[in-house]
This record gives sequence, C-alpha cells and structure tokens, in this order.
Amino acid sequence: MTPPSNKTDSLEALRERLRNFVRERDWDQFHSPKNLAMAMIVEAAELVEHFQWMTEQESKDLTPEKLAQVEHEIADTFVYLLRISEVLGVDIIQAANRKIDLNALKYPVEKARGRNTKYTEFE
Amino acid sequence: MTPPSNKTDSLEALRERLRNFVRERDWDQFHSPKNLAMAMIVEAAELVEHFQWMTEQESKDLTPEKLAQVEHEIADTFVYLLRISEVLGVDIIQAANRKIDLNALKYPVEKARGRNTKYTEFE
Amino acid sequence: MTPPSNKTDSLEALRERLRNFVRERDWDQFHSPKNLAMAMIVEAAELVEHFQWMTEQESKDLTPEKLAQVEHEIADTFVYLLRISEVLGVDIIQAANRKIDLNALKYPVEKARGRNTKYTEFE
Amino acid sequence: MTPPSNKTDSLEALRERLRNFVRERDWDQFHSPKNLAMAMIVEAAELVEHFQWMTEQESKDLTPEKLAQVEHEIADTFVYLLRISEVLGVDIIQAANRKIDLNALKYPVEKARGRNTKYTEFE
Repeated sequence: MTPPSNKTDSLEALRERLRNFVRERDWDQFHSPKNLAMAMIVEAAELVEHFQWMTEQESKDLTPEKLAQVEHEIADTFVYLLRISEVLGVDIIQAANRKIDLNALKYPVEKARGRNTKYTEFE
Repeated sequence: MTPPSNKTDSLEALRERLRNFVRERDWDQFHSPKNLAMAMIVEAAELVEHFQWMTEQESKDLTPEKLAQVEHEIADTFVYLLRISEVLGVDIIQAANRKIDLNALKYPVEKARGRNTKYTEFE
Repeated sequence: MTPPSNKTDSLEALRERLRNFVRERDWDQFHSPKNLAMAMIVEAAELVEHFQWMTEQESKDLTPEKLAQVEHEIADTFVYLLRISEVLGVDIIQAANRKIDLNALKYPVEKARGRNTKYTEFE
Repeated sequence: MTPPSNKTDSLEALRERLRNFVRERDWDQFHSPKNLAMAMIVEAAELVEHFQWMTEQESKDLTPEKLAQVEHEIADTFVYLLRISEVLGVDIIQAANRKIDLNALKYPVEKARGRNTKYTEFE
C-alpha cells in the first residue's frame, strides 16, 4: 500500500522542524508569546519594507530577485506565527477557518461586493 | 475504504476557501501585494496589542477569554499571509522550509545555544 | 514687553504633560522601553489601517472625518515615541537632526534625486 | 539684546530641514500618506527589533552602543511621523495635546491608577 502523500502533513512536518530547531538551541526560554509577537511583527515589517515606495502595480510585477527576498520575509513571518501558535496551543488552520466563518457573517456578499469598506462602516 | 483524512490538504482547503471568499466579494482589485502587506501588519499589531502591557509570564498564562481573542488575531494575520503568498505565487510551506535551512547555517547549534544574539553580532 | 511665545517650549510642555499624566496614574511601572515600543507600533499600525485599501491618491484626499481619525493615530504614535524617548533619556529633536545629517551622506542629492532606491542598492 | 533661543522653534526648524531634504531629492512624488505610513511602521519595527528578546529590565539598562542604535530608530520613526503630518497638514503638537485631553477622560485617575487595563475593559 502506498504511504499517504507527504503533503498530508507538510504543515505538521514544518511545525516539528521548528520545535526541534528551537529545542536544539535552547531558545524556548526566549519564546514567550509576548516576545514571539514582537519578533513576528518585525518580520512582517520587513515584508512591508519591500513595498513601501512601490506603486500597487509595481508590487504585482516583482523581479525574480525581489520576489526571492519577499519570499524570505513571508517565510520569517510565517515561522513566528507558527511558533506563537505552538506555544499557545492554537491550531492555526482551525483558527483561520473559524475566522472565515465569522467574516462571512460580517461581510455578506451582497453588502461587501466590490467595496473596501470596514463592516462597521456599512450604512 | 475510508477516504483519506481531510487533514491531508487542510492548508490547501483553507487557501481555496480564501480564494472563493475574495472572488465572491470581488475584492481581488484591492488585493495587491502592497495592500495585503499593509493589512497583514495591521493584524499582526492587533496580536501585539494583547501583549503590550503584560509581563512575559502573563503572556504565557492567558485566560480562556484572552486566548480566544489572541486566536482571532493569529487567524487574521495568517489569512493575509496566505493571501499575499497566493497573489505572488509563493508556496509558503516550501518558503518556510528553505528559510529554516538558511537559519540553520546562520545559527549553528554550538554558537547559538541559549543565546538571544543576532547572528551578525556573534563575535 | 511681550512674553516669549509659548510656542518656544510647546514640545517641552507636551513632554511635561505626559510625565504628569503617567505619574498620576502610576503607570511608570508598565512603561519599560520594551513595552512602550510595542505600544508605539500598535498605534503606528492603527495609522496604517486607515490607508491599507486606499490608493495613494485617495490617501492624499481624505475627508475631514477621516483626517480627524488619522490625526488621532498620529498623536497616539507620537505620544509613545515621546514616552520612549523620555524613559531612555533621548533628545528626540537632536536625534532626528543627527539622523538627517547621516541620511544626507547616504543619499547625496545627485544620486538620490527622483529615485526610490535604498542607498544600499545604488549601483 | 540676545536673540531668542533657537530652541523656540527647534521642531519647526526640523520640519523645515525635512521639507528641504525631500524637495532637493524630488521625493515628494513618493511621499503619499499611504507610503509614508508604511515607511513609518517599518522604522517603528526596527525599534521594536532591538527589544524583542530582552527582558523589560534589560530594555531599561541599555549599553551606550545599543542606546545609540535605538536613538537612530527613534529618529527615523519621528522623521516619518513629521513627514506624514506635514503632507496631511496636521499640527502634531496640537494633535497630541488634544489626544491627551481625550485620554484624561477615558482614563480618569481614580479608575486607571496602577492598572494596565484598556478603558473599554473597566468594569
């Protein structure tokens, strides 16, 4: 019988790698949710930095070199987001699915279509 | 025969939900990488906000109510991170694995163990 | 003779108000540089939030209502920036002047004119 | 007769330097409020980065070298905050004073003393 595709648990495999990476370096002591949230927003800002002087169109047409840099910042942000989920015991996939359920209520298709308005500002 | 666990593609299923959510609302027009990076850091900051006046220890001992709020902010940040990966064609799992490979070189166990120092500051 | 304009020390007067505000509420205990930096970026993100789905042009043409909201976020960010300067003993005006001196060296007019390139990327 | 202290308008002098700096480099074209808000939060994050793995106590006891670095990030954040105020026509001192007036109402001394609770959470 063929084993299940390793795509099955690619996210779980990544989480496991991260756990080991941190444990080997004895970094758990620094990984409080407070500190991880700070580290995460710092990486998020490095992603923002790439786009700050670009037009929206330019941000869609990245050179391969720029895209590779952007990819690293996405990865760094994701890694800290996984770590913070880990130390808080949050299932990030489930959390996202629940949030989409909520957003579907806050942004019903008929009201939100084509509008960039926050739901609290719907008249 | 039992179908494969839907955990197999839980991340892909989430991405698909997001794609549909955005398409139904005709929000692609707002989802340039530049704008998504902004939206993402705004959500990241809402996560930071929960922890700003807490001690590190307090950030580890969240009440269930606070944890539920934190979970929503993690989800929001993750959702925008997935969206930006989507519009840029980035495989977020692969990107994270590559970054961990690089970090393993920048932070070798013997140098990094128990230290909170940036690799550029290793003497 | 007219007294000196109270514009003389409007920044110092503001700092003094902030010191008193914090002292009366016994908030110094929470105002470590670490915490203030977190609070500051949270306010900065609230400023970013107003602009995330706007075009650049829209961000220049704010309605009076939107401008008033933006003004509050600028104020909040500034207040925490003053607080962090205060607790660290940084003269924010002097620091800014020094940084402009440095930037003038990093971005000489003839190289930087009309370009949105980071100085490390000048060829 | 001695001229008025140039401290009188140190903030105005700084704003004027910034205006000239930007004009000489023809950077006004990039300085939409949207872009400046992004640049500002990027600098704010560089400030946060210095503190992310420190304890609160460590963030109070910076070495002179670290303090000098922190000072640069404070300056960068301040510079973009002044720029965004400039392009939007906001008087940053007045805005801060107004915000403190509001905060004094939201956080009355008797309710807020010694508490790190957001005003919306006062019981």
